[in-house]
Parts: sequence; C-alpha cells; structure tokens
Amino acid sequence: MRGAVLHAPGDVRFEERTDPKIIEPTDAVIRTAATCVCGSDLWDYRGINPVEQPTPFGHEYVGFVEDVGSDVKTLTPGQFVIGSFFASDNTCANCRNGYQTNCLHREFVGAGGCQAEKIRIPLADGTLVATPDQPAAEHIPSLLACSDVMGTGWYAAVAAEVRSGDTVAVVGDGAVGLCAVIAAKELGAERIIAMSRHEARQKLAREFGATDVVAERGEDGIARIKEMTAGIGADRVLECVGTAESMQQALRSTRPGGNVGFVGVPHGVAIDGTELFYSHVGLRGGPAPVRAFLPDLVDRVLTGRINPGKVFDLTLPLAQVADAYRAMDERRAIKALLTP
Amino acid sequence: MRGAVLHAPGDVRFEERTDPKIIEPTDAVIRTAATCVCGSDLWDYRGINPVEQPTPFGHEYVGFVEDVGSDVKTLTPGQFVIGSFFASDNTCANCRNGYQTNCLHREFVGAGGCQAEKIRIPLADGTLVATPDQPAAEHIPSLLACSDVMGTGWYAAVAAEVRSGDTVAVVGDGAVGLCAVIAAKELGAERIIAMSRHEARQKLAREFGATDVVAERGEDGIARIKEMTAGIGADRVLECVGTAESMQQALRSTRPGGNVGFVGVPHGVAIDGTELFYSHVGLRGGPAPVRAFLPDLVDRVLTGRINPGKVFDLTLPLAQVADAYRAMDERRAIKALLTP
Repeated sequence: MRGAVLHAPGDVRFEERTDPKIIEPTDAVIRTAATCVCGSDLWDYRGINPVEQPTPFGHEYVGFVEDVGSDVKTLTPGQFVIGSFFASDNTCANCRNGYQTNCLHREFVGAGGCQAEKIRIPLADGTLVATPDQPAAEHIPSLLACSDVMGTGWYAAVAAEVRSGDTVAVVGDGAVGLCAVIAAKELGAERIIAMSRHEARQKLAREFGATDVVAERGEDGIARIKEMTAGIGADRVLECVGTAESMQQALRSTRPGGNVGFVGVPHGVAIDGTELFYSHVGLRGGPAPVRAFLPDLVDRVLTGRINPGKVFDLTLPLAQVADAYRAMDERRAIKALLTP
Repeated sequence: MRGAVLHAPGDVRFEERTDPKIIEPTDAVIRTAATCVCGSDLWDYRGINPVEQPTPFGHEYVGFVEDVGSDVKTLTPGQFVIGSFFASDNTCANCRNGYQTNCLHREFVGAGGCQAEKIRIPLADGTLVATPDQPAAEHIPSLLACSDVMGTGWYAAVAAEVRSGDTVAVVGDGAVGLCAVIAAKELGAERIIAMSRHEARQKLAREFGATDVVAERGEDGIARIKEMTAGIGADRVLECVGTAESMQQALRSTRPGGNVGFVGVPHGVAIDGTELFYSHVGLRGGPAPVRAFLPDLVDRVLTGRINPGKVFDLTLPLAQVADAYRAMDERRAIKALLTP
C-alpha cells in the first residue's frame, strides 16, 4: 500500500509502504475512506518539532474494517468506523474516568501513519466506533472531523466547563478553534466570541454559531474581550493554538472564577503560579479524550445537528498529500481532506 | 489602642497605634474579640517577603461592631461579626460570581493590621457576617478560624471540585491543610489522605476526618499516593503550602481528569504547560473567597458540625503577639489565638 512519509521539514512524500497487518489479537486493520492533515502535523512539517528519520504521518481517519484479530468482539469486516488518534482499551481506570487519551494501555495510532491507504488500529474494540449503517457520502467529512478536530474542540469546551448562558471566547481560528465554536454552541453558550483575523474563517465561525468576532490579538485582544464583558472577562475561554502568547491571551481574557480549556499542544508554555493564583481562573487541558465523545458526536453528525466537515475547504487525492501540507502551511486552506 | 507592628523580619512589637475611625460611610469599626497569626504572616516574619517599613500586621478577626458609617444598612453596634481578609462590596459582577476576593472594589482588611484591639472594616455590609446571637465562648475559636483558615481550606476543596465518594489528598499540615481535611469530609470525600510528618498534626488530621496519613514527601510522597490509588493518583488534591515543591507534589499526585485546588500563596511557582497538558489535571487556586462561604461555615460551627477552632493549640494575650509569632515560626504551635 501507499502512504505519506515525512522525510524532513517541508518534505512529505507519498510512497510505497508495507501493508499493515494484525499483530496483536486485539488489532483491526481498516481500509481508509478519508484522512486529513492536522494543524499539529505542521509543527513537524515546519521543523519546530525535530524530524529525526523518515516518519509515516497522519493520525485522523475514517474507514472500513478489513480484518480483525481473534480477540476483537464488537467489530466485523465491512463496518464503517471512526476512531481517535490514541488507541485505548476503554476499560482501565483512566478510561472509565473519561480520559481515554490517558489510557493505561494507550498507543498512538498515528505512529503507523494514518495518511495511508490502510491503517492498523490497536485495541480496536476500545478505540473504534462503528456507524449504525454505511454513512452517506455527505456525512464522511464530518465523521472524519470527529476523529480529531471536532472531538478536540468539544473537549476544549468540556474542559472549560462551558454551560448554558455562558459567554465563551475562542482563541485560534484553525479547524479546532472553529469546531470549538460548534461545541460551545451545542453546550448552550449564549455569546461566542471567535478571535480571528481571516475573513473566510470569521465567516465559518459565524456559520458555526459565533455571535461576535474579535480581530485583535495579544493585549489588544484581551482589552476587547474585557470591553465586551463588563470589564471582567469571558466566563470560559477555549485555547486552541498552543503558544505562550495564545495561552497568556486566554488566561487574561477569562473572568475571575472562569475557566480556560486548552487543547493546543503547548510549545514553550510556562504558567506563572502567582498570576494564576490571583486570577482565580480554572485551567484544564490535554490531548482530547475523543473516544469518550465519539458516540454522541457521531449521532449529532448523522442527525444533522452539527456539520464540522465544513472545516475542510480543500479536498485532494491522497497521492497529493504534499500539496495538502503546503496549502495548510501557507494558510491557503483551513484543513485538507484526502481521499485514497 | 494597641496593636502588632512588624518592624523587620523577626521583630514584631505590640505598641500604641492610632485608633481606627470611620473614614468612608460604608465602613465599620469593630472591637476585636479574638485574632490570630496566619501561616502566610510567616512569609514576612521570616523575611521571605521584604519588610520595607514598620507595618501593622494580621488579617484574621472576629469582634463586636462598635461604630458604623452612615451608609451601613445591615449592621448595628454590639453585634458579633466575622469577616474575610479582603473587604468586598458583595454586589459587583465578581462577587455575584462567588469570587469576593476579586471584588472590583476590594480592599485588604489586613492593611490596617488586625492583630489589634480595634479594626476598621471597609465595605462593612458586604464584608461582615453577624451571628444570630452572641456566640458562646466555646465557639469563638472556630468562628475566628472561619475568617481565614477554615474558609481557605473550604475553598481548596471547592476549587478542586471535591464531590461525594472522592479520594482526596491534602498537601500541607498547617492550619489551612487541616481545615481542608474538614472541608473534604463535609463535601463527601470517602478517603482523605493527610500528608504530614508531625505527630500532633497527624492526630488532629485524623480527628478532622483523615482516613490515611502519608509522611513521605516529594517523589516518595507521590509514589505513596499512587500506590494507594491503583496507580493513577487521587481524584482531588488540595495544595495548602505554596512552594514549587508542594505544587509539583500536588500536580503529580492527581489522577488524569482529577483536580488540584491550590490555596498556598505561591512563592516561586511556575507550571510547565506541557506537563500540565499531558496530565489532564484541572487546576484552580487563589485567595479564598471566604465571604461566599461564611454564612454556611458559621452555621456549621454554631450547630456543632465542625470544630476548626481546634487548630489553635496556643492561646496568648494579644500583648504577647511576639511570642505567638515565635512559637509558629519554630513550629511549636500549629496556630496561635490572641485575645485582647
């Protein structure tokens, strides 16, 4: 089979790779229906994370079960499935607490490279969620989005404890930030402020439920949020970038007693204990336990309540994966969907 | 009147000071019934916080209303009152959200020095809570404890979102940590692990509801907590010290998806964003909004449900305030109560 391999910063190649096989009896192998490029892939593509050897890439996927190991009980070949980027047994103490991305037996599915024609999924029973029927083609982008960005945006809102009537600000207008707008709306936020300076993303944010858009950043952005919230800050702020600047913007835009949910993978972020103390802001982040949300999110997609697939504004054949990276790196595309 | 003044590290003097007066029409002046020395006073006494000029000291108090300003509506001379170390209007947006220590008009009551015979209380209506009747002498230490340490321990548990059935670890065996044990128990924790290596404090922790005591600290302490919690960590950890070491111990003793409530005033604490991210731990701290909890806490004291006054293991005349500081500095006393 063929798949994407990152050889060096800026150098993604689509090349022949060994077919994935069942290794453990709890594995499944799926035939990819769609995959995509994640904002977090760009950290490596841009050389911010070191690339030490040719590395199969990608960690988002939907597909058809092709083969299952002898211990897999809930899946059968042919089913359409969605899964998270971390495989989880979904039975350990951390999974039972709803933190499948901290499963005591977790494995990074992306280690095998999901921008490929086939993918090995460890701990298949605990990782994959099958749709009740074969989904309509129109639902596939949104189901794929649930595999990471929609699940991650959802977690941002859950980690920030968004509740009915809240004023929520979203820092970051990438696919995760845009999906966080959807999540805030679904969880009952009354006012949703998208922080974005890109017209196409502002437009999509409004379509997803943003009531306001703030183009300012940094101190100016914080001042704008305070102006809009009687001087005290937003009830909840969803940090969807991962830089020191974006985290500071998030923390300082939140009212005393409010919460920041942070899902941007941190790069160079240190939080001053004294400032956090006097702010009274609550803080929780992490790799989103997407598996916990998948059944609900899949249902919301299939019933037409949410349509996070709109974040894909570029669709390319998987063979052109290098073009997809380029388009996202240059911010010509919000998110690129790839079809084998 | 006379009161305590910190002249330099280690140099507390009881001396004649100007009588406090009504300055704003929202002020009250109270005659002190009891006051005490706080663990946080020791940061200054030990010279860790600089002492730049002779400073009236102390921020915990109960007393009798002596005089009220013309705008004070809810208080009358003679009433027995308890208040927080921060004066708050109890009507602004932050107060309404339950964060009176971030009141938009807050003033630090301790600025006037509460280890004194009389105290000026700004924003009296929003700051002071009167008891229904004159309390019995036996309740006064516990009511005084509510002014700070009991309210602060309570906030640690609230900030950590302690709920019924939880396993809670408490880092710090000072008066706040011991009161945090009471709070965890009252909020329904099933297992309460007090981290302490001092026999008298261990004993009081058990009396307050601790089910287990762990004497180890640092990495050994973290390992002990994990051993006791099926390898994952406690559901909630209450950080009641404020050092980099105690914060790290708290964060690393908490399970993924659990919470740390931190109430020790941070000294040199920086939190690594990446570690916090992958831990999935939620974090909230701050100066406790004691005012929010006072009516409930006073009720729990007067009905005999809680007895936080037991943290006072030394009672001295206010004139001997210097001895009280020495005893706490040398850890001969958990907390010293002072009577004018």
